[in-house]
Amino acid sequence: MIRIALDVMGGDYAPAELVRGGIEAARIHNVHTLLVGDPQAIAPIVQQHDLTMARVDVVPATQSLAMNEDPVRAVRARPDASVTVANRLVRDGQADAAVTLGHTGAGLVSALFTLGRLPGIDRPAVGVPYLSIQPKTLLIDAGANVDVRPRHLLQFAAAGSAFMHAMHNIPHPTVGLLTNGTEDNKGGRVSRQAFDMLQQSNLNFIGNLEGLDLPRGTANVIVCDGLTGNIALKVSEGLAEVLLDRVAAALREALPANIAQEMVLPLLHRLQTENSYAYIGAMPLLGVNGVSLIGHGRSRAQAVIGAMGQARLAVEKHLVGALQTELADVVGEENA
Amino acid sequence: MIRIALDVMGGDYAPAELVRGGIEAARIHNVHTLLVGDPQAIAPIVQQHDLTMARVDVVPATQSLAMNEDPVRAVRARPDASVTVANRLVRDGQADAAVTLGHTGAGLVSALFTLGRLPGIDRPAVGVPYLSIQPKTLLIDAGANVDVRPRHLLQFAAAGSAFMHAMHNIPHPTVGLLTNGTEDNKGGRVSRQAFDMLQQSNLNFIGNLEGLDLPRGTANVIVCDGLTGNIALKVSEGLAEVLLDRVAAALREALPANIAQEMVLPLLHRLQTENSYAYIGAMPLLGVNGVSLIGHGRSRAQAVIGAMGQARLAVEKHLVGALQTELADVVGEENA
Repeated sequence: MIRIALDVMGGDYAPAELVRGGIEAARIHNVHTLLVGDPQAIAPIVQQHDLTMARVDVVPATQSLAMNEDPVRAVRARPDASVTVANRLVRDGQADAAVTLGHTGAGLVSALFTLGRLPGIDRPAVGVPYLSIQPKTLLIDAGANVDVRPRHLLQFAAAGSAFMHAMHNIPHPTVGLLTNGTEDNKGGRVSRQAFDMLQQSNLNFIGNLEGLDLPRGTANVIVCDGLTGNIALKVSEGLAEVLLDRVAAALREALPANIAQEMVLPLLHRLQTENSYAYIGAMPLLGVNGVSLIGHGRSRAQAVIGAMGQARLAVEKHLVGALQTELADVVGEENA
Repeated sequence: MIRIALDVMGGDYAPAELVRGGIEAARIHNVHTLLVGDPQAIAPIVQQHDLTMARVDVVPATQSLAMNEDPVRAVRARPDASVTVANRLVRDGQADAAVTLGHTGAGLVSALFTLGRLPGIDRPAVGVPYLSIQPKTLLIDAGANVDVRPRHLLQFAAAGSAFMHAMHNIPHPTVGLLTNGTEDNKGGRVSRQAFDMLQQSNLNFIGNLEGLDLPRGTANVIVCDGLTGNIALKVSEGLAEVLLDRVAAALREALPANIAQEMVLPLLHRLQTENSYAYIGAMPLLGVNGVSLIGHGRSRAQAVIGAMGQARLAVEKHLVGALQTELADVVGEENA
């Protein structure tokens, strides 16, 4: 049975919603959940739940991290923080995957320090699918690396490509570079150099893409720095929210009350939920030597269940091995 | 009567839709339209239209620019290109504003070379309102400057602030810096330095903002480099398009055919049109010494009319004078 270490001390709804999600995930996904955190806080919540058919254990961690801390300093200062204990279980072979839904930066640093990097990777990155609109389009980096060099963008492309191959069974994923137009000479200094490196790589590089191509899903992997990726995703999340609210308000006014209430609003609500990042759960950090997933701090139990499902899938699909192979092909020679 | 020089040789629907829009704008906005371009191409189109109550003249330009040319080289090589002739009319006091809807880069370079920069400005920028969703939130730079330094972001902030004051009568516009979070230490190297400069300026700076704040309209002016701005706007345009299509498809299936056809689809179509950049027309290039507007290459007559209205407003509101005053306050001392 796949063992998943869940950091239940991080995130806006910790520990109650995380414990609940972890227990339900054990049953739903048929995994062994290791709830990592303060046993005194976890025990009373576990007792409120039915554990039939759910394999769940508690692994104590005496420390935790707050949302506003400097990641590097906090992770170094507290080696027994729940997120680091979860990653250590993976490193030591006592868990197959770690999941944290707290401080994104701390999750990244903790995984990096504990599990180490894969050969060929300077900076691990997080890729996320473009909302529910284009589930087969991965935006990478989604926020882990703010200032990047051209070779980092190449590494993100290789990691994203391996991810889409392993997790979505797409044999030779198309890769695009996100800039301000589709012509070859678009973008800034960094993206123009990355363009040349991508073109010389053996990735299935289709060239520069522009903002429109994300919602249109023009490529399987769309590469950018983490600052741009974070902005593109949050603009999209905010726009979906505002736009669907406007549609709902306009239709509530235009349509007979019963039709609006019974047919239209539930449908819009479903579209809105599907386009919220809380719905996705978590995504694996690509480039560390182990399966470690980072999710949204605003996750409730439903998102935790989704995150645990992603973790199980990453283990089953041998994501780390697939990444190693792809990286050896694409960036191996340069680093040799 | 305000005189507006319209470059009718640039853009996807040149010259027919531009000539038509220019003539209609003369009547609708009560301006004197100068159609700048090849007289042989313009004359037969003018003849198809009713010129009653429309003051329209043709100003010949013997050259024009193609969409895929290098802007600096093309503008230098062809001094009698229609866009440059239009800007020269402004420089020489024969027109109050110039409008081009062709090659954005060429429009920028032509205005910069012909009209020159305002004191305190290194790089003129284009600000655009965040779709129809937040008309009182200006994103600047929207695409003119890809690689920027911190002081350029400060200049964009000052220019955007002057624009919102002059054009929207907002006395002390709020200004935010677009990064990957709202905490003070967010963003990359360039944005962290710009943060300090903005905080020390006398602009109404409210701090770092994230992607969600664009559709939510958290500030009157949201500052970023042109690469990020272009991506944020095009992602939004594409998402609005895809999301409203999905809503339409789902409602067409869920609702009785007559209600869908008569009440829902027209409403969604209106929302979609309002959220297309083709609808806005054009925006003034902020930081050049004269009123020069650049619009979407995909503009049809309706967008041309909108662009001409924006041009008239910029002249009436003394936009260039307002910019000079604001720039002297914000960036004057450093440059002295």
